[in-house]
Amino acid sequence: MPLFPPSLERLVLILARLPGIGKKSATRIALKLVGSSEADCRELARAIVEASEKTVACSTCGALTEDDPCPICTDPRREEGVICVVERPSDLIALERTSRFRGRYHVLGGLLSPLDGVGPEDLSIPRLAERAKEEAVSEVILALNPTAEGEATSLYLARALEPCGVRVTKLASGIPVGGDLDLADELTLGTALEERREL
Amino acid sequence: MPLFPPSLERLVLILARLPGIGKKSATRIALKLVGSSEADCRELARAIVEASEKTVACSTCGALTEDDPCPICTDPRREEGVICVVERPSDLIALERTSRFRGRYHVLGGLLSPLDGVGPEDLSIPRLAERAKEEAVSEVILALNPTAEGEATSLYLARALEPCGVRVTKLASGIPVGGDLDLADELTLGTALEERREL
Repeated sequence: MPLFPPSLERLVLILARLPGIGKKSATRIALKLVGSSEADCRELARAIVEASEKTVACSTCGALTEDDPCPICTDPRREEGVICVVERPSDLIALERTSRFRGRYHVLGGLLSPLDGVGPEDLSIPRLAERAKEEAVSEVILALNPTAEGEATSLYLARALEPCGVRVTKLASGIPVGGDLDLADELTLGTALEERREL
Repeated sequence: MPLFPPSLERLVLILARLPGIGKKSATRIALKLVGSSEADCRELARAIVEASEKTVACSTCGALTEDDPCPICTDPRREEGVICVVERPSDLIALERTSRFRGRYHVLGGLLSPLDGVGPEDLSIPRLAERAKEEAVSEVILALNPTAEGEATSLYLARALEPCGVRVTKLASGIPVGGDLDLADELTLGTALEERREL
């Protein structure tokens, strides 16, 4: 005999596809949902559908937005001429949280990965080159994860942007602020040493 | 400027109410949902509403079911006369997973908690007393969490079931199988010692 009624079983399976949700959390969430009021469940269902319908990618930078172009692209207070390139919308949000960047963004939508068949044309790279020319950009900051794929994509972008004559920089790698030298892996520590700066 | 479009912000807030989901996981899930196809989002939304509409509590035992009475209550192969009392539907599922219990269940729907104003009439205790009489029950197994509230509820039930003349037992407390004496807290180890059994 199945442990769950079929509709609950189905909900568990679908919930377990979400990031960071295993079978066990999915079960807990499903039981909680079924145990709460139908109105609450409808509210969640509606919120999911609404967010999915209303949110689009900004046609300029690729950020998630309800208005196209997005509020960052149309904000006259944002510095023109500096574009920060990120992999995903969540990276953009992480950077905005720092309140340390006043330029505009460009969301690639992924990283180059020849093994998975992801080439430049699958990402928003041609659009970035266009923007670099059109928007009189002076600097492109590459804020991709410092993984093998991130570094390869950064190198590719640096080369692709060369003809535009813009300055291309990337985020510093090193010991996290508040971190511990003792706990840093040798690659990070080695990079921090190599890229040391004057005090 | 808000970091998220309003519909996404709303989804994050609602998701963060789910058990085990903090603001960070909610954000990750919301971004994943918005990034996936509208069809996928509709599928999840539909599954939530369907599970919530179709699943009811069994009028006999309180288990979650689409058919009332539930498949366990109507299964002729389940042992009659033994009822296992649990707090929540998830506890019932945990016990079913052991495949070691062949009787029927009774879901209380909570534990007695005078401080929170939860009395016997708020739980399915009167229905349990009815069943103990009607169903010619010989044993009631109390499978409540061994917390202060669980123990208090167990004691209350033992006394409430006395007039029915049924045998009332509770789950053994002790060292988890495969566990480590060294890591057991003193209460658990003390209980295991007190409730030692013949080999």
